[in-house]
Amino acid sequence: MLKFTSHYKSTQNSQAIMDSALATIKEERDSKKVGYYNLPQDSLVNLERVEALELGDISQVVVIGIGGSSLGIKAIESILNPYTPNAKEMLFLENSDPITILDTLSKIKKEEACFFMISKSGSTIEATSIFKTLIAHLDLDLDGADNKRVFAITDKGSVLSDFAQHHKLEEFTIPDNVGGRFSVLSAVGVVPLAIAGYDMKKLLLGAGEFVESFFDGKENHLLEKAVYLYEQSSIQSINVLFSYADRLEDLTKWYVQLWGESLGKIDTHQKNVGLTPIGLIGAVDQHSFLQLIIEGPKDKNVTFITIEDFQKELVIPDITLKGIEKTNFINNKSFNTLINAQAEATLQSVVESDIDADAISLDSVTAENIGALIVYYELLTSLVGALFEVNTYNQPGVELGKVILYKNLEN
Amino acid sequence: MLKFTSHYKSTQNSQAIMDSALATIKEERDSKKVGYYNLPQDSLVNLERVEALELGDISQVVVIGIGGSSLGIKAIESILNPYTPNAKEMLFLENSDPITILDTLSKIKKEEACFFMISKSGSTIEATSIFKTLIAHLDLDLDGADNKRVFAITDKGSVLSDFAQHHKLEEFTIPDNVGGRFSVLSAVGVVPLAIAGYDMKKLLLGAGEFVESFFDGKENHLLEKAVYLYEQSSIQSINVLFSYADRLEDLTKWYVQLWGESLGKIDTHQKNVGLTPIGLIGAVDQHSFLQLIIEGPKDKNVTFITIEDFQKELVIPDITLKGIEKTNFINNKSFNTLINAQAEATLQSVVESDIDADAISLDSVTAENIGALIVYYELLTSLVGALFEVNTYNQPGVELGKVILYKNLEN
Repeated sequence: MLKFTSHYKSTQNSQAIMDSALATIKEERDSKKVGYYNLPQDSLVNLERVEALELGDISQVVVIGIGGSSLGIKAIESILNPYTPNAKEMLFLENSDPITILDTLSKIKKEEACFFMISKSGSTIEATSIFKTLIAHLDLDLDGADNKRVFAITDKGSVLSDFAQHHKLEEFTIPDNVGGRFSVLSAVGVVPLAIAGYDMKKLLLGAGEFVESFFDGKENHLLEKAVYLYEQSSIQSINVLFSYADRLEDLTKWYVQLWGESLGKIDTHQKNVGLTPIGLIGAVDQHSFLQLIIEGPKDKNVTFITIEDFQKELVIPDITLKGIEKTNFINNKSFNTLINAQAEATLQSVVESDIDADAISLDSVTAENIGALIVYYELLTSLVGALFEVNTYNQPGVELGKVILYKNLEN
Repeated sequence: MLKFTSHYKSTQNSQAIMDSALATIKEERDSKKVGYYNLPQDSLVNLERVEALELGDISQVVVIGIGGSSLGIKAIESILNPYTPNAKEMLFLENSDPITILDTLSKIKKEEACFFMISKSGSTIEATSIFKTLIAHLDLDLDGADNKRVFAITDKGSVLSDFAQHHKLEEFTIPDNVGGRFSVLSAVGVVPLAIAGYDMKKLLLGAGEFVESFFDGKENHLLEKAVYLYEQSSIQSINVLFSYADRLEDLTKWYVQLWGESLGKIDTHQKNVGLTPIGLIGAVDQHSFLQLIIEGPKDKNVTFITIEDFQKELVIPDITLKGIEKTNFINNKSFNTLINAQAEATLQSVVESDIDADAISLDSVTAENIGALIVYYELLTSLVGALFEVNTYNQPGVELGKVILYKNLEN
């Protein structure tokens, strides 16, 4: 269960604007121009294929991918891991940093690992460079001994798909109408995470129920929030996501990509628009970024995410530290209580400082809740994108750097 | 060696403004109102004390602290670790997250560990709660067997200092005129990192040389940058730090605290001022945040940090992936070359998109370079703070949340 609470200053949400945003994304869904709305159902077939795989005794799942091909997978693994007994180790090869690649390579146990090469276009420079290195370093025999443990996840007809067919590698397809940063519930996330032992069926179920509930008109808070964020955007141009759990950090990174890359665009009127996402972790960032929120320019609003019940008991013992007796009030309380009290106090201090805030509370960490949280943010992004009149699903701004890179390196 | 390159649009820097900012921080230093300027020299005594310690065979350094009592330590450990053979393992207990605390507790080998309780005020709620838990969980005998392996780093006369004296624990003092987020070169960072095997003498040397060079008038680029950031601040309110090395991520987090908490203030004219820091990692965040920089609102400028020579060779093998031949141009090049080419191409694409950028290049990762980089950002922060007419060194905005927390929890 997710609980949504808003502390926005009272505002008259225009019903017409809400209707228009909703109509836009309904049309995206119904026309199948945008495919992520249906992934919770469409992706079930991937789980069936996973069950049919004969992988033998593997203990590691190695993912080669970057951006939309890794952020969502890491987000789900990180938060669900403490609640998933016997989950297999996941290793991520993302960045072109030689130190990290060497370190990760040293951890791979070739005979116990399966490998996912994930790239929507099929030719992402980081992923292909790392894949070549992996082949050489581990002496992978793609046509022989290792053929059944190397997988490709890519667009239909991509160069990676050609490669997979050449070596007769098992291949999973990313639907054409699903962009990279909206792809975590496609094969991209579902297949490696299911193999690693995460309950992706329940996660898809939670996601599907939320999408259905939204289109059934039962999640109007989401429409109201989208319109509010849009209407305040000329002043409140920064959206802070303040998550009170260390293991939500990767989810905030996934949010930063989704929000920043989807909305930061040249709109239909040739104007540079967008909202700047910031991911914070509580209580840590109360000691870092909070001062700026409270006393800095009033250009930010804040969403708090909390977990009501961490389901891991750790009580602060009844010890008096000689000299520091004033902290005794915390004795016999749990860290679960402390971190949530910190979230609540920080929320109150933000609201009292006249800064807009809202809150999302998960009753506990379950696959269903994480699935719902993922589609919540995807739907919110699509709605705000519709209001901004941008193409929410492309990223033309990153092409120039790629062109320059190829030119510089080929010379 | 650090190399600084600016791609700012030509501007007339006012000499008078530069002089006034410089005069302000010179006065802070000379009057000893602000103490961090002298830490590179003043902190050497901490290294002498470390050498005199008899710790026996320890393999772990456990740090209990949050915010300014952990961010800088983590930043230095993270980047220097691959270049520091035989460094001891460092474990950080920061957040009030029960999952993380339980996980870290399970890794501590009591007989091989030494413990640093770090808190400027001495009563930080996260640190004291965790310290109590540690005492109970490990059955620490503070007055007996474990007395020589538990240390306090805190302000003179703080409640933690009282506690340390009561148990006759070895104590290191944070100078009164050094704020938490400027304290990494005090005992806070120097002592645990030196014990863990990091060359803090060289780091202090690099820091000291840079501070001296600056006050000798040899780093005028820093003054020019401060004035430029200040003069552009009403439009460019977001300062992105884009670091091209995974292990610089903790340094970007340290920067976010330093910049956000120092400058986000109510100024002398009762105005909410400040600049919003964002830390990115390249090439990863080219696939996430870059789109927003290029096509979104023109409210950002970007500083690129690169490492010329990672001193770890990893060459992309000369392998042709059937179907993906178009990536062959990268074969036989190193990842070191690739990641720096990506940084350069991204910088060019940003500048061509009419966005202000500058670059800091480290010839390699050395303790001296990291020391210089740290004081570079501290000096920049002080200069911009002087221009904004704020108190750069306090954080009054976070007090309200603490008051509410105490009130809520005591009821």
